Amino acid sequence: MKILIKNANILPVQNDVPELLYGCIGIENDKISFIGSCPDFFTPDRIIDADDGIVLPGLVNAHTHLAMSLFRHYADDLSFWDWLFGRIVPAEEKLNATHVYNGTMLSLVEMIKSGTTCLSDMYFYMDAVAMALEKSGLRANLSRGLSFSDDKDLYKLEETRAFYDKWNGQASGRILVDVAPHAIYTCGPEYLKKTADLAKSLNTRIHMHLSESIKELEDCYKLYGKSPVAHARDLGLFEASCYAAHCVHLSNDDIEILKDHSVSVVHNPASNLKLANGIAPVKELLDAGINLALGTDGAASNNNLDMFEEINLAALLAKGKSKEPKTLSAYQALQMATIKGAKALGIDNITGSLEPGKRADLIIIDTTAPHFYPRNSASASLVYGAGGTDVKTLVCNGQLLMENRQLLLLDESEIYAKAQESCMKLVGSSGFGP
Amino acid sequence: MKILIKNANILPVQNDVPELLYGCIGIENDKISFIGSCPDFFTPDRIIDADDGIVLPGLVNAHTHLAMSLFRHYADDLSFWDWLFGRIVPAEEKLNATHVYNGTMLSLVEMIKSGTTCLSDMYFYMDAVAMALEKSGLRANLSRGLSFSDDKDLYKLEETRAFYDKWNGQASGRILVDVAPHAIYTCGPEYLKKTADLAKSLNTRIHMHLSESIKELEDCYKLYGKSPVAHARDLGLFEASCYAAHCVHLSNDDIEILKDHSVSVVHNPASNLKLANGIAPVKELLDAGINLALGTDGAASNNNLDMFEEINLAALLAKGKSKEPKTLSAYQALQMATIKGAKALGIDNITGSLEPGKRADLIIIDTTAPHFYPRNSASASLVYGAGGTDVKTLVCNGQLLMENRQLLLLDESEIYAKAQESCMKLVGSSGFGP
Repeated sequence: MKILIKNANILPVQNDVPELLYGCIGIENDKISFIGSCPDFFTPDRIIDADDGIVLPGLVNAHTHLAMSLFRHYADDLSFWDWLFGRIVPAEEKLNATHVYNGTMLSLVEMIKSGTTCLSDMYFYMDAVAMALEKSGLRANLSRGLSFSDDKDLYKLEETRAFYDKWNGQASGRILVDVAPHAIYTCGPEYLKKTADLAKSLNTRIHMHLSESIKELEDCYKLYGKSPVAHARDLGLFEASCYAAHCVHLSNDDIEILKDHSVSVVHNPASNLKLANGIAPVKELLDAGINLALGTDGAASNNNLDMFEEINLAALLAKGKSKEPKTLSAYQALQMATIKGAKALGIDNITGSLEPGKRADLIIIDTTAPHFYPRNSASASLVYGAGGTDVKTLVCNGQLLMENRQLLLLDESEIYAKAQESCMKLVGSSGFGP
Repeated sequence: MKILIKNANILPVQNDVPELLYGCIGIENDKISFIGSCPDFFTPDRIIDADDGIVLPGLVNAHTHLAMSLFRHYADDLSFWDWLFGRIVPAEEKLNATHVYNGTMLSLVEMIKSGTTCLSDMYFYMDAVAMALEKSGLRANLSRGLSFSDDKDLYKLEETRAFYDKWNGQASGRILVDVAPHAIYTCGPEYLKKTADLAKSLNTRIHMHLSESIKELEDCYKLYGKSPVAHARDLGLFEASCYAAHCVHLSNDDIEILKDHSVSVVHNPASNLKLANGIAPVKELLDAGINLALGTDGAASNNNLDMFEEINLAALLAKGKSKEPKTLSAYQALQMATIKGAKALGIDNITGSLEPGKRADLIIIDTTAPHFYPRNSASASLVYGAGGTDVKTLVCNGQLLMENRQLLLLDESEIYAKAQESCMKLVGSSGFGP
């Protein structure tokens, strides 16, 4: 299959200096074959007119919990403990694989409709997640969230290994499997060591929550006399390739440790504000040269999976927190949501930027909405003006998943109905309340 | 003209306790005639099926500079002084009434398409603004921004009076005229006194910027030995009904002064972050019982006029700053963007909530997007999930301005082309750059 996209403002997000090309992109099977002008020998099966729209790499949502969309708009404006133990955990205890499949599908629809081509999910019933992901056409790093009360929970490591054996590299290479110790406060030191060993033995990545709340920080000092970052390092978690979500509370020493061990940080600005955990030190992380990715976290603490909102919030907050409006330029924010996300997930060699030879993971932005006028900077338009609904067309791994906002592989209505059905069973909601 | 809206989840935003009704809304001429079930005697000329959508009051954008959309995506990621004096002021010096009309029209299109029915604009060439506003069908408080170098600028007060005489109460009562001393750092004390006197003599409101930046605060202490809030009070600005934008830097004493004088504060969270001015003390203002409204500021420092983004940001930031996730509930954020905005503008007796007898200023939200599933809280859906593009239909003063996202009074393509033409003349931009 050969696809030609024409009349496009192309933002490849390839280099640290922003550049914009006008012209065409050619796709052959799963890869980008050229960018710029169309060579004579290229005979497309399909031509897509971008119509002066902007084409950029598909967005990478580097930290989420897909099936938590089942609890969207159900547990808001609550203290963290009421949120988690009063609402989320009791509902999660009723989850089964069908619910997880339904919630995951709802999230995948939302992601496609808001421009995400690649994501990292950490949750349970991961076979159901992998099946949904395979069907959706998207790309993902998947991981079973691991927590350990005692040795009887060690079976979860075997589940992770089995999940890795079954799914890593599957779905035309779109699925990779990571190892996910949930956090230092849900896994004791000896279990964290075992997860690090597992990741090393599988030669895969570690995906974890780290230094999210003040409570995590304070408890860690009380129990272990050091910061969560130092604790994680000492237990070997950074000996594997590691990407850590949140990282709100970091000392200068912590930042140095993260840098020394090439840990990627996944910034989750909406969730960190909504649960009142604070604002991550983005300027300091950038200045240290740490690879900084972006994620929405789950829809129960956001409450949507629109990466454009997350990009906007990241750029605004970094300026407000650093008291310097030059911090995190529009283009840097786009890098976080594309190539740097891909790097965190260990796949920047195949995706995250538009380059011949890379997988064709891209989105076309409809620039006919008023917030795209007048024409000025494309990067600023995307970061400070746009929203997920401006995404018109999405291609992942060379396959068209959405064209003119119509999903081509998934049945939206059916997916919404099934998610509602699961929500009804889990928390009893069938219609809008105030 | 009688319009019946049916199959609606209605959020009247009438009381401090959130409530949601299911049923119909009747509109007769410019007013709401009933909410709930349709009385037998009501024979509508038009029936609109809300199709399980949410109906709420039209949003009130209580502080903006409409024509600055001409400079959208043109001056980003710059220090405040480079932004203002390197980019914005030189471009503004070339403005004429035609440019202001074109920029205003672009903003009004954007506002309609994102659910705003009422706004407060402070700018120049206000006749052009009023003409655009009249044509748009929206409701607005308009004011000429006043700054004074010396007495030769006093003509601006006469312009304000003439503008008031010509436009206050016009466009079927949709236009009101306020007096707008730009800020304490652009108007000397004797001029501020004169603006206060003018507002009192016209019995109208004062709209101003207040305590936006640290520099404003520090300079005010240096020059006058007191805070901007105390300075404004001492010059009589709070003797008229006053609404003050930004109010980022406030002491407890300042908050007490604002409360004692019933000053409304207009929160501008995106602009305050983007220009690195900081985060306003929303929790403290709420706790003090101050009327807190919401605005986008101009599109040159936001960069869109989508009030849904502003609502979301306000709710998230208030939690993050106060370290308490219960601060500014979803419903409180909606109140800021509706009834409290109307109160700031002195028109809560006629708009800002859905009540029989009030003007029919309302929006219908299309709830078919994935972020509205599963059905749970309508308020949380709007605040934490929705965006301006979810607005399907908009009614202002009983008149349909948008139906199924089609504008009924304005020609979008023509307005975009004219805005681009003005932008070309002002800053030389005709297409996307990186």
